[in-house]
Amino acid sequence: MDHARIRNAALRAKVMSAADAAALIPPNSTVGMSGFTGSGYPKSVPLALAALIEAEHAKGNPFRLKVWTGASTGPELDGALAKANGIEFRLPYNSDPIAREKINRGEMEYLDMHLSQVAPAAWQGFLGPLETAVIEVTAIRADGSLVPSSSIGNNKTWIDRAEHIILEVNAWQHDALEGMHDIYYGTALPPNRVPIPLTRTDDRIGESVFRCDPSKIVAIVPTDAPDRNAPFAAPDESAKLIAGHLLEFLQHEVKLGRLPASLLPLQSGVGNVANAVMSGLLDGPFENMTAYTEVIQDGMLDLLDSGKLRVASATAFSLSPTAATSLNARMEQYRDKIILRPQEISNHPELIRRLGCIAMNGLIEADIYGNVNSTLVMGSRIQNGIGGSGDFARNAFISIFMTPSTAKGGKISAIVPHASHVDHITQDVQVIVTEQGLADLRGLSPKQRAKVIIANCAHPSYRDQLEDYFRRAKLGSYGLQAPTLLTEALSWHERYIRTGSTLG
Amino acid sequence: MDHARIRNAALRAKVMSAADAAALIPPNSTVGMSGFTGSGYPKSVPLALAALIEAEHAKGNPFRLKVWTGASTGPELDGALAKANGIEFRLPYNSDPIAREKINRGEMEYLDMHLSQVAPAAWQGFLGPLETAVIEVTAIRADGSLVPSSSIGNNKTWIDRAEHIILEVNAWQHDALEGMHDIYYGTALPPNRVPIPLTRTDDRIGESVFRCDPSKIVAIVPTDAPDRNAPFAAPDESAKLIAGHLLEFLQHEVKLGRLPASLLPLQSGVGNVANAVMSGLLDGPFENMTAYTEVIQDGMLDLLDSGKLRVASATAFSLSPTAATSLNARMEQYRDKIILRPQEISNHPELIRRLGCIAMNGLIEADIYGNVNSTLVMGSRIQNGIGGSGDFARNAFISIFMTPSTAKGGKISAIVPHASHVDHITQDVQVIVTEQGLADLRGLSPKQRAKVIIANCAHPSYRDQLEDYFRRAKLGSYGLQAPTLLTEALSWHERYIRTGSTLG
Repeated sequence: MDHARIRNAALRAKVMSAADAAALIPPNSTVGMSGFTGSGYPKSVPLALAALIEAEHAKGNPFRLKVWTGASTGPELDGALAKANGIEFRLPYNSDPIAREKINRGEMEYLDMHLSQVAPAAWQGFLGPLETAVIEVTAIRADGSLVPSSSIGNNKTWIDRAEHIILEVNAWQHDALEGMHDIYYGTALPPNRVPIPLTRTDDRIGESVFRCDPSKIVAIVPTDAPDRNAPFAAPDESAKLIAGHLLEFLQHEVKLGRLPASLLPLQSGVGNVANAVMSGLLDGPFENMTAYTEVIQDGMLDLLDSGKLRVASATAFSLSPTAATSLNARMEQYRDKIILRPQEISNHPELIRRLGCIAMNGLIEADIYGNVNSTLVMGSRIQNGIGGSGDFARNAFISIFMTPSTAKGGKISAIVPHASHVDHITQDVQVIVTEQGLADLRGLSPKQRAKVIIANCAHPSYRDQLEDYFRRAKLGSYGLQAPTLLTEALSWHERYIRTGSTLG
Repeated sequence: MDHARIRNAALRAKVMSAADAAALIPPNSTVGMSGFTGSGYPKSVPLALAALIEAEHAKGNPFRLKVWTGASTGPELDGALAKANGIEFRLPYNSDPIAREKINRGEMEYLDMHLSQVAPAAWQGFLGPLETAVIEVTAIRADGSLVPSSSIGNNKTWIDRAEHIILEVNAWQHDALEGMHDIYYGTALPPNRVPIPLTRTDDRIGESVFRCDPSKIVAIVPTDAPDRNAPFAAPDESAKLIAGHLLEFLQHEVKLGRLPASLLPLQSGVGNVANAVMSGLLDGPFENMTAYTEVIQDGMLDLLDSGKLRVASATAFSLSPTAATSLNARMEQYRDKIILRPQEISNHPELIRRLGCIAMNGLIEADIYGNVNSTLVMGSRIQNGIGGSGDFARNAFISIFMTPSTAKGGKISAIVPHASHVDHITQDVQVIVTEQGLADLRGLSPKQRAKVIIANCAHPSYRDQLEDYFRRAKLGSYGLQAPTLLTEALSWHERYIRTGSTLG
């Protein structure tokens, strides 16, 4: 494989084992890795690094890294390094269960960032120095440029900014990926920033490969290992109902002339509800749709196959093992339909607002005024992170949040009197959908919003309790712009921790 | 004055009294008025309208309006209409004390919006129909185009979208204002939006006047009345200390090469602390500065006079009576130094991020993790509104929040365990400054942020209490990403309402 995938003769001299490459990473330094959801992350060096760290710890030597990525990665990266107690500090997103547990036990620091802002913050010098980049690529071309793999994330920035670069060349990644990527090289620091020349989801504004200074490459590790994403569950009844309400709403907006018949570019968060919406769109009336989003999930591939979705722009694939295998078997068919971009471009506020994306994201809880918590269970325990939801929700044409009205078999209400943490302020939440119904909050004051959210979105078993709170809050609140009873506001969360249920 | 200021002969036939003009506004309709802070709002028709409403109410007839503006206005508009109980619904911002009281008593609905999003939301059809626009202008030109007055706000959008237009032509506004404005006519609905071609604060990308369909003009009311802004207090010791910490920080950033020597475009919120910062910059080392901001306050005029500030772009003047008189006497001198734009452009995320603004805004309270409440006192009582702070904070090069560490003579701590309402999430708050010191939060996890905020920003009389909370939260919290004690989180606010002090 070396000659086919490593086409630059001089660089072949840098080929070495993962263990030798890992040994080049300084203890207690910062490493910028590739990876966005379970795709395109390095699969071999992080495992070797975890082994090295465990060996050093056994000898009593401190060895913990600051780890930066695109977003979440796979078990071979976050899982292995967290298990080895090798991560001191992590940004900008995590969904690995071992790392999550470490964070929630206070054993690992975690900076949860807007995904569009990671690359700019690194360029602005706000995150500190970056010693090493560890990047998975599909191939190294004869001119030394790098063909990206199944995610772009922050790879361009890590390659440009790191002192040293370790490449994993993964033969499992389809070589037809070459040409699918669009790496924009027009970013700059102010005062030299210029308009980003993208006006359509399928505009190509950059290059298909990463530029890379060959003198910075210290190791090349050949691999042949699949991306590892979790399989999706088939949409359950609740997800189907949510998708149904949402489709009805979109049809209504088209009918009123507030949306074009082909809608506007879709952004869809990760997860089963999002996938159910894609399934719903497959059977829906909309043709010639486009997606300008973060990740391409199974449902979006189906939409592309059907012809209803004309093109999808994202920064990564986020496919079930089945869909990933299927994609790899037919990669050429998607060459003109899929564009992968750096996450600072896929999630850029300038572009999201210009394109007028329809943002569809999940949540942990929303309060009666429509403040949304996407990250901290009971206000303190991190689930995953804000990801790109803030980039999209604030700048979308319509910002929609979707969730089943309850979790844990009805023991947790997704609609609460007062959000225990806020990621999306009321101004950025225009529509909330649960299996119960849809709340269209556009143009409503907080008290008007509360009425609609309680009536349309809350589960019947919580509705009376919420109405009672709202009624009493209007009598006993300090001010009546957003009536709040301070001694009760967080009592549902406190009750859940104490009794295992938010039901009073 | 008619001939000098109303240069279109045909339109002179529409001149009438304020009372006659007010009578053209349908009961229970929506009115889009000019006005941004205390400048450029109509001064005569709203007073006549208030009288009309009171007369109708006396007859038992319902008459309440939906009132849209740029931001806050003057007592002749919000004050008079609120006093007449004539406002059913208000957006997007209010700082009038009578209206505030009505809102907090639940007698008036208030939708507090991101100021950049008002015009797009109106165009997108999300706010409902707009029957009447009431707009103050400096003059009507021979071709029927309109010379804006001392604020632009949403006037372009109201003029374009309203069914009928009432103009107030205010002779008090200096005729040298003509040519200072830059009205961009390149906005569109998606999928037809294009890059906004502005790359420098002093770029002119539009026209100096409003286009206006003369057939929609139903009344023209001559006026001669001053803008009414509150005078600023001279900076107190606390404001001077805050400004000092901030200037030291900016010098440090320049020294490290993270900011250019002339800084980056300044955005400054409204108020005495903001004005103190401008005074500080007057004596500071930075030359050739620019401002890309919402309003031009007294301190910014002084900076322009000194030559240290080269140019200021905003959507409105927000001057003390003294400074307004002084400006009016020397308006020609500022013709090349000041540009007034529509608020969707002055506050546009695309432009704020491109220019790399240094955002400096005030707050009501920040919690130990850096969540900021800018709007709701004790979580429920509206102060003013979010205004443009969200537009700037999220998209700034550096987002800075400034506040004295206590309010009400020490009885309220501005640093609390848990924000009672959130307008700016931790991700959008990079620096907090009080008279005690400055917390640089860039690159820090929540627990790291808490240490720095408590140590550097909290008032000494609250520091132990905050440290004690944080220490116990780390022992008793459900998760340790952002340690929280749910039963205590809002207890400071509850205590204030009960005892008049947040001190335990």
